Amino acid sequence: MIRTHNAGSLRAADAGSTVTLAGWVARRRDHGGVIFVDLRDGSGVVQVVFREEDAHALRNEFCVKVVGEVTRRPDGNENPELPTGEVEVTAVELEVLSEAAPLPLPVDDQVEAGDDIRLRYRYLDLRRSGPANALRLRSRASQLARGVLHERDFLEIETPTLTRSTPEGARDFLVPVRLQPGSWYALPQSPQLFKQLLMVGGMERYYQIARCYRDEDFRADRQPEFTQLDIEMSFVTEDDVIDLGEAIVSSLWKDLAGHEITRPIPRITWHDAMARYGSDKPDLRYGVELTELTEYLRGTEFRVFAGAIDAGGYVGAVVMPGGAAQSRKELDGWQDWAKARGARGLAYVVLDAETGEARGPVAKNLSAEHLGGLADAVGAKPGDAVFFAASATTREAQELLGAARVEIAKRSGLIDESAWAFCWVVDAPMFERTDEGGWTAVHHPFTSPNSEWVDRFEEAPDRALAYAYDIVCNGNEIGGGSIRIHRGDVQKRVFDLLGITPEEAQDKFGFLLEAFKYGAPPHGGIAFGWDRVCMLLAGADSIREVIAFPKTRGGFDPLTSAPTPITAQQRTEAGIDAKPKPAPAAHAGTAGPAAPVADPV
Amino acid sequence: MIRTHNAGSLRAADAGSTVTLAGWVARRRDHGGVIFVDLRDGSGVVQVVFREEDAHALRNEFCVKVVGEVTRRPDGNENPELPTGEVEVTAVELEVLSEAAPLPLPVDDQVEAGDDIRLRYRYLDLRRSGPANALRLRSRASQLARGVLHERDFLEIETPTLTRSTPEGARDFLVPVRLQPGSWYALPQSPQLFKQLLMVGGMERYYQIARCYRDEDFRADRQPEFTQLDIEMSFVTEDDVIDLGEAIVSSLWKDLAGHEITRPIPRITWHDAMARYGSDKPDLRYGVELTELTEYLRGTEFRVFAGAIDAGGYVGAVVMPGGAAQSRKELDGWQDWAKARGARGLAYVVLDAETGEARGPVAKNLSAEHLGGLADAVGAKPGDAVFFAASATTREAQELLGAARVEIAKRSGLIDESAWAFCWVVDAPMFERTDEGGWTAVHHPFTSPNSEWVDRFEEAPDRALAYAYDIVCNGNEIGGGSIRIHRGDVQKRVFDLLGITPEEAQDKFGFLLEAFKYGAPPHGGIAFGWDRVCMLLAGADSIREVIAFPKTRGGFDPLTSAPTPITAQQRTEAGIDAKPKPAPAAHAGTAGPAAPVADPV
Repeated sequence: MIRTHNAGSLRAADAGSTVTLAGWVARRRDHGGVIFVDLRDGSGVVQVVFREEDAHALRNEFCVKVVGEVTRRPDGNENPELPTGEVEVTAVELEVLSEAAPLPLPVDDQVEAGDDIRLRYRYLDLRRSGPANALRLRSRASQLARGVLHERDFLEIETPTLTRSTPEGARDFLVPVRLQPGSWYALPQSPQLFKQLLMVGGMERYYQIARCYRDEDFRADRQPEFTQLDIEMSFVTEDDVIDLGEAIVSSLWKDLAGHEITRPIPRITWHDAMARYGSDKPDLRYGVELTELTEYLRGTEFRVFAGAIDAGGYVGAVVMPGGAAQSRKELDGWQDWAKARGARGLAYVVLDAETGEARGPVAKNLSAEHLGGLADAVGAKPGDAVFFAASATTREAQELLGAARVEIAKRSGLIDESAWAFCWVVDAPMFERTDEGGWTAVHHPFTSPNSEWVDRFEEAPDRALAYAYDIVCNGNEIGGGSIRIHRGDVQKRVFDLLGITPEEAQDKFGFLLEAFKYGAPPHGGIAFGWDRVCMLLAGADSIREVIAFPKTRGGFDPLTSAPTPITAQQRTEAGIDAKPKPAPAAHAGTAGPAAPVADPV
Repeated sequence: MIRTHNAGSLRAADAGSTVTLAGWVARRRDHGGVIFVDLRDGSGVVQVVFREEDAHALRNEFCVKVVGEVTRRPDGNENPELPTGEVEVTAVELEVLSEAAPLPLPVDDQVEAGDDIRLRYRYLDLRRSGPANALRLRSRASQLARGVLHERDFLEIETPTLTRSTPEGARDFLVPVRLQPGSWYALPQSPQLFKQLLMVGGMERYYQIARCYRDEDFRADRQPEFTQLDIEMSFVTEDDVIDLGEAIVSSLWKDLAGHEITRPIPRITWHDAMARYGSDKPDLRYGVELTELTEYLRGTEFRVFAGAIDAGGYVGAVVMPGGAAQSRKELDGWQDWAKARGARGLAYVVLDAETGEARGPVAKNLSAEHLGGLADAVGAKPGDAVFFAASATTREAQELLGAARVEIAKRSGLIDESAWAFCWVVDAPMFERTDEGGWTAVHHPFTSPNSEWVDRFEEAPDRALAYAYDIVCNGNEIGGGSIRIHRGDVQKRVFDLLGITPEEAQDKFGFLLEAFKYGAPPHGGIAFGWDRVCMLLAGADSIREVIAFPKTRGGFDPLTSAPTPITAQQRTEAGIDAKPKPAPAAHAGTAGPAAPVADPV
């Protein structure tokens, strides 16, 4: 090593030692004949004292090697803010390892910079403590999770990333295959089918911190490539996977956030989550629960509510504490907010802070009786506002109220930003109606119905429940999984209900179905959205903060300028325009997509 | 868990316990009213005893759950071959978790099967102990390496796999970008440039078990995607990286091969390796060293040798102990062997086992004096054969002799298959001549000349040495790396020598050069070919054995039938045929390829 000591490690006890340091000039201050330099390396910062004539050329971010003697700072000059603040290093030798041109991005924790400039000069950005610590945290998070998994005899197994395209579901990224012109690989959306095959192969406990790819339209905070902690286990029940998941998040939050998670983490059924919070990923840091009013308001003459009720739908409300104090403009703002979400508006009444009398646009449409009992029905107090949603589709109305709930918490400052609230959302529905009147799988078609429904899900597909579970932290889904179907007969019945013919099933999922013929074990798993987990642990507001070289919207990399056009020669060589030859003989029963489904993280 | 115990964990001390097991029927034997089943799970095998009427339907590879009592086997019925051989489980309950159809690939460690059938039914193949243990070993190898690295404060950092194409070097796999039609990502050949940027970013110690991609013509044992353990460190010398590399391989070989590596691992210079072994990855499990005869044979009238010597080239020899006993057909076979390697033949003499007299095609071309002293000159004894190579190009002749050396060791049974011989090959040349008379980099253009040459490599480019090092195990290069250039002035001189103009450099490597302007630290690293390392540790003869789902030649996956043709809709959506729009404005100095170079593993 070019250095003998880490700059940040020096303490009073080192006084008198001669040390060699190597790092960067973080700051320099000239004091008549003497120059003080904050020397920074990966371990921290120490003050180095140079004679003026030795160091006059030093500028910020020069990379230097310094030999010097550690001395205690003069009395009164200690810096208690700095771990090394009791000492300084008196330089006797200086070597400039490399110079730095004027910086396009100041290496200064105090300076805000735009994302584009930060990513273009990511190597300067990473010299700042915040970005560097985010990557350190991520590295540590991965080791912690691995520790939990290896303690439990999991095997880390790498699955292919050049795999088979599936022409449906989220879009695949495609890769032309020069040696089989006209044929293409796809980059996997997840290792889902491979991990299930590993279970069929008797590997029993698999994990991988896996790169995954989805060619989605870029929304805020989406990356074309992302990472999941992917796990699958054989011979388990839902409780086993949940227990493992809790062990992982407990270890992470304890070590990296100093937070002891109380276990078991509460479980809430999917239907309860929708009913109480209007969300399948409820933020439990605050209350503000929804109240269903369908029965309470039955018989109302208010057309909006009556229509929903008569259609077998739902009317409900959520209370904004103190919301009656909002100005007319603020209340109108809620209408704009609702419209931006695609709703027609957000009906409300406000309860007079003194009299408790209900006022507002909806009040005049409700009967005196309905108005009179409303505060009790929804748990509102004088001075509160009550927002309503009604729809023939229960979920639609609940989701609107759920979003209003989150917005209320934000606007009313009800969110304790230092709190951590976890829950499992379990007992998700197996199926939901398609627009065409058929059924589609809520998770994916390999998710197992639970024991109550496995023999009779056909009787009431809309009520059938799955062994599917998501783990939610502060309103963010950080992981999700399910127990999978491992029996061909059950799988066939699910396909039948979904309207997938045996031929289609064979074509799409053939190789997995083939594998299931040979003694597939019961199995299940979970996948954590690793970028999101690390983002939350880092207290960051974007997954970009915990990715070494993230892309901006549209998948552009400001650092390398990827993607780029390719040359005509590359195009020809890669066989991009070749007509596909007949595929190599696939044996019956193994043709099918490589990764059409995934744990939904 | 569906089971209470692992099958392979049961011992005499468990006798009397009631256990629930879950696993596969590995073998069944019927014994009049009683059926013995070997029940296999991830932990091993135990014998289960069923009443005939309970288990008559069981066939091989049924997945079952069994409740039973552990009992000691009757005296004399113990199986000392089996860890569980003192006990058996008397079944009281049997549940078939899933049935197995007749097997296309027997799950039997004794049965040989072709690669195609093994990969097509990889999930059955993995139920056999050999393939399963290979994946277990690989998982363990990764954890061991991580242990060494985290102990030394390395950070695991993930780098992008959707990155920028470089139109030279090995071919990139390309990925069309739907959101920027006409633009393409490339899959990285290695994280080389990103890891160097992380060093510029002050991360100091990076590692990653990284998926890499090279679109090469498939040779035996190449995969389009492969894995490397990729490492980079700042403020280090070559010795530091070598020391770390030794710590990693020592840990691996000790734990997984029961072999204590003697450290320091011997270092041999690249020139010595070529001179003594005719290879830059010498197998040191045996001797059979080369002897240079250029001076000894100077003045010979044998045209083949004289031509090489006069051209300033090389004549050398390698001795095959006892090689004089070979039949004429065997000796002719060496000619075919040499021609298959692209040589014109392999000159030889044999030394009569009794008289020591030199005979054979070359003998009559050499003077009596040259023949008389030959045995001493090359260290041969009566009964040996001496093979010669001569060329105006030293390296060409040495490599032929080096290949003959390996072949001699094989044919003469000189290889101790239980031995492990490691070495570092250091002091590699910086440059070699191109066919056009210019210079090219032996490693890559970012490799640093060593301290002896850094200020004057232009004086004798052919003799200039690099801080480049490869680690070799039993003749396999398992890792390689270098200290990198971190100073713009040195980099510019290297580019000048290589005939790369400033404009080209900017275009190709712009973003790295830009980064080097801002106080780049001295840095270096290494990359291990992880598939090959695991293959050697597993005692396997192909990297496919240590990959969960490998591809066959041509990049075909017999399991999923990838790659496949894509649909017209996929083609259109992915923007494959779109004309590229002008690229998003790249700032000057950052345009350039993402990964044109890599540690050569």
